Amino acid sequence: MRIVRIQTDADAQGNQPVLAQWGQVEADTIYLTHGMGGARTGQSVPLAGAALLAPAEPTKIVCVGRNYLDHIRELGNDKAGLPTEPGIFLKGPNALAEEGGTVKKPDWTESFHFEGELALVIGQRSRDLTPENALDAVLGYTCGLDLTARDRQKTDLQWFRAKAADRFCPLGPWLETDLNPADLRVQTRVNGQTRQDGRTSQMIFDVVQILTYITQFVTLEPGDVVLTGTPEGVGPVEPGDRVEVEVEGVGILTTLIS
Amino acid sequence: MRIVRIQTDADAQGNQPVLAQWGQVEADTIYLTHGMGGARTGQSVPLAGAALLAPAEPTKIVCVGRNYLDHIRELGNDKAGLPTEPGIFLKGPNALAEEGGTVKKPDWTESFHFEGELALVIGQRSRDLTPENALDAVLGYTCGLDLTARDRQKTDLQWFRAKAADRFCPLGPWLETDLNPADLRVQTRVNGQTRQDGRTSQMIFDVVQILTYITQFVTLEPGDVVLTGTPEGVGPVEPGDRVEVEVEGVGILTTLIS
Repeated sequence: MRIVRIQTDADAQGNQPVLAQWGQVEADTIYLTHGMGGARTGQSVPLAGAALLAPAEPTKIVCVGRNYLDHIRELGNDKAGLPTEPGIFLKGPNALAEEGGTVKKPDWTESFHFEGELALVIGQRSRDLTPENALDAVLGYTCGLDLTARDRQKTDLQWFRAKAADRFCPLGPWLETDLNPADLRVQTRVNGQTRQDGRTSQMIFDVVQILTYITQFVTLEPGDVVLTGTPEGVGPVEPGDRVEVEVEGVGILTTLIS
Repeated sequence: MRIVRIQTDADAQGNQPVLAQWGQVEADTIYLTHGMGGARTGQSVPLAGAALLAPAEPTKIVCVGRNYLDHIRELGNDKAGLPTEPGIFLKGPNALAEEGGTVKKPDWTESFHFEGELALVIGQRSRDLTPENALDAVLGYTCGLDLTARDRQKTDLQWFRAKAADRFCPLGPWLETDLNPADLRVQTRVNGQTRQDGRTSQMIFDVVQILTYITQFVTLEPGDVVLTGTPEGVGPVEPGDRVEVEVEGVGILTTLIS
């Protein structure tokens, strides 16, 4: 099943300019639901023309760095040996951006990189997940673009502005609930040219290992997002570029750089 | 004014075991309000016996590392020179813990450190704050305990479990709204013995500089928490220890280590 989050009109008082509603996609129709993954309300809207929002309302976005061997090598990060545990960092909800959205290249980076990734959204509160139940905690899978100020990763104490600035995490277009994450093709194209082309089976730590690791330390809440790392081929983008992240079995997330 | 967040009874259906309500403290009474900083509801409860919760409902907790010169020196982090910009890292809302709460020393750290700090909670959505309006974005000030797995800071790619694990951010006991953060005494005691005793005037980057820096990159939302860094004197705690963080003009935050 495909689950979307869409923007709807302001309320009658106009108090809240962006209202979001969740829905299920069937053919060319969105059937609205009571919240994320809830029962249908009975209302529906056409998929065509719907304003898609990032399909998540997270309390945190938990990301894995250096999870594909060839990506570790391309950045010269293999000198200290391969990671023995997942390398985790955080973004806040402020980082989300939506399908078709525009992200401004900040003036404080000379090296604004794309990193296409498999992302997942948590469906139930989870702590101390096990290999047996880890995937049950996942509501669905989507495409994530982990935008990165590569130069600021090196100059800053921690990866804060380098990774967690506003709109540095485009996500979408929707969640696909019926998907096995073990061996999916993950591609990133810039202006139509393929720049990353990996498979999730190349991850050093797979989705199950990532979830069991993270939940040793933090409680994941419904709506939380996990980004699973990027394959080789990362590189800079400039204003005017169009970035597409395609995850097999999900679809394509398009982001415009301005 | 003192603003508290307290735990109230489960609802009639028992669906939600912990309900939180905000209130204003006057003498020995809590006057309940409509949300954080809202108008009074007309209901009140005694302060004595109220179950205080962390006085924040953040979308993110933004922390400053290495903001006091003597603390930088005590950890041997002064070899590369002093920071020219604030060093920022994130915790998620999962890290919050409440006044009087117990935090378990994890079995994956041999060096579980206290760091007492001035914390603040944001009152209004803020981006690109200026020196003139930065403090207007602050709803109130409180005591923060930035619990840190010192050994894992060194072994891990980023400060994820070292800083952002569940309950690694005790906060409280309340927000004090009428306070000038420029020169407040910040003390930490372990089992009654003073271990940290600094003043916010010793910060390398003061509260105004921290807020203008952060909001160049991220939007701060109402309820977001900012931790401003710790003075010298940090050290390990063990099960059975009682940690008190006292910020002048606010009060004392007590945390029990188990």
